[in-house]
Amino acid sequence: MAPSKVLALAGGVGGAKLALGLARILPPERLTIVVNTGDDEEFHGLHVSPDLDTMTYTLSGWYNPETGWGVAGDSFETLAVLKRLGADAWFNLGDRDFAMHIRRTELLRSGMTLSQVTVELTGRLGIEHPIVPMSDQPVRTVLETDAGTLSMQEYFVKHRAGPEVRSIRYVGAEDAKPSPGFAEALESVDAIVFCPSNPHLSVAPILAVPGVSDAIAAHTGCRVAVSPIVGGDAVRGPAGKIMGELGAEVSAVGVAREYRGLCDVLVLDTQDAALSDAVAAVGITPAVTGTIMQTDEDKIALAQRVLQLVKTAE
Amino acid sequence: MAPSKVLALAGGVGGAKLALGLARILPPERLTIVVNTGDDEEFHGLHVSPDLDTMTYTLSGWYNPETGWGVAGDSFETLAVLKRLGADAWFNLGDRDFAMHIRRTELLRSGMTLSQVTVELTGRLGIEHPIVPMSDQPVRTVLETDAGTLSMQEYFVKHRAGPEVRSIRYVGAEDAKPSPGFAEALESVDAIVFCPSNPHLSVAPILAVPGVSDAIAAHTGCRVAVSPIVGGDAVRGPAGKIMGELGAEVSAVGVAREYRGLCDVLVLDTQDAALSDAVAAVGITPAVTGTIMQTDEDKIALAQRVLQLVKTAE
Repeated sequence: MAPSKVLALAGGVGGAKLALGLARILPPERLTIVVNTGDDEEFHGLHVSPDLDTMTYTLSGWYNPETGWGVAGDSFETLAVLKRLGADAWFNLGDRDFAMHIRRTELLRSGMTLSQVTVELTGRLGIEHPIVPMSDQPVRTVLETDAGTLSMQEYFVKHRAGPEVRSIRYVGAEDAKPSPGFAEALESVDAIVFCPSNPHLSVAPILAVPGVSDAIAAHTGCRVAVSPIVGGDAVRGPAGKIMGELGAEVSAVGVAREYRGLCDVLVLDTQDAALSDAVAAVGITPAVTGTIMQTDEDKIALAQRVLQLVKTAE
Repeated sequence: MAPSKVLALAGGVGGAKLALGLARILPPERLTIVVNTGDDEEFHGLHVSPDLDTMTYTLSGWYNPETGWGVAGDSFETLAVLKRLGADAWFNLGDRDFAMHIRRTELLRSGMTLSQVTVELTGRLGIEHPIVPMSDQPVRTVLETDAGTLSMQEYFVKHRAGPEVRSIRYVGAEDAKPSPGFAEALESVDAIVFCPSNPHLSVAPILAVPGVSDAIAAHTGCRVAVSPIVGGDAVRGPAGKIMGELGAEVSAVGVAREYRGLCDVLVLDTQDAALSDAVAAVGITPAVTGTIMQTDEDKIALAQRVLQLVKTAE
């Protein structure tokens, strides 16, 4: 039997790709997409939620596949003038993208929670599947690096993921709670999917919210992760580099170790098939399939495979 | 002798035109331009100062003469998405214009006063003459009309100045103080110029700030006003309509009555030369010249004439 309700945990680009595949298969009432907000940061006094936006733009069809961020075809007039006005404008924000941040900030200041604001914004863009922030309280991913203490966006955008990472903290996590939609999903779903997102920068902040890790560890449904590491490096972004710097093996086996006790099945790319035994040795069932998602068909095919694995495992 | 230091009081478009003329003649240390902030309003959580912006764009060369507001050649991507996101977007804001409001709001939230923010923003755009808000405290022009109670922008933009005005209040004025630059100018200048701005919507809010009207009334330097009413109506905007609805004569004579006791000389347009005696009967010296400013040469010529009048009167 296919799972009746699925919880997908996701960060930015890679996570959004699989979430799109899942959303094309499952109706809105059978899928909850919980998104990392550890990357959120205030720019120019506006609340920017990079992963929520990437997910929102991906599911609304606004996503820019060429850049990996922002809105396709966006212009940059506002940012150009902000630079002229003396603002520190190293974080790229397009004119359409700015509208999202302006509106989000206005609604947050009016007293709405980030969850409520996200329902409003995604609904306005025609998205029917629930996109849920991991928490309505601020959790900020902070990296200790050889270039000093950096926020996630400072590390990733300003420093182009160059500095060596020594440790990562999720500031505020101890005082955060899972958002209502996340808490409800943790109790009601019968399958959990770890999208192929950065284990340390995208998934770990979600797991750092009190109660989340325990709830997933105790979950009786099937839990499937898709490795973001393929062929010895991340498909995209600094996940591989960071795993190596933190002393982990940069492979699907390293990913399996990160998710030990939290996940039942790890999907490895076909080019990593030889790692199956090593993944099994960690205590996680390996499943091999193509995981590189370029077209929407790729995303749907991987989502189909993940849902089959859930079904098989039950 | 030409005045050594001039204070210009201004609202939006018409006031900015004469201020530009004055700024082309007088060096920065000899001109202070005080601008109405009664039109300020928050849109999308951002602090918009329409008259400060019109003045800033005019003096920086960014002004859009075709629309009478905003930045020439601006685009409207941000606003289009804000509408899509459910924002109430009746007030036109361009993408470059948004940068001004975003930066102003950020700096205000950081604890800077509106005066300090205006120094920063105008300086970044290369403006050397001091543009000074009338007050750092909020004063809001509120109109009682046959369509209900309206803010200045609701009246002027949303309702296109259509409703009949019954009375006007300057909410917050009693708790406001002249901004430091305004207070300093009131004490140090030897001439005051009332730019051709709307007497009720642009100049009256400035005069409503406690102490301003008394300081101008007691001022010993020469005080010259330029009539915004020419040939029985405003050169631009609803000044004539409002004067009529409030029971005033819609003419330079009506303007003279508004400024009685505050000004020594009223500049009338050549087409209103016949009103000279009636203006003199109010107790203000009439001076006739061309006041329609289309080109920059027109603006400089009128500013020259105003400065000559100051000199003559001394």
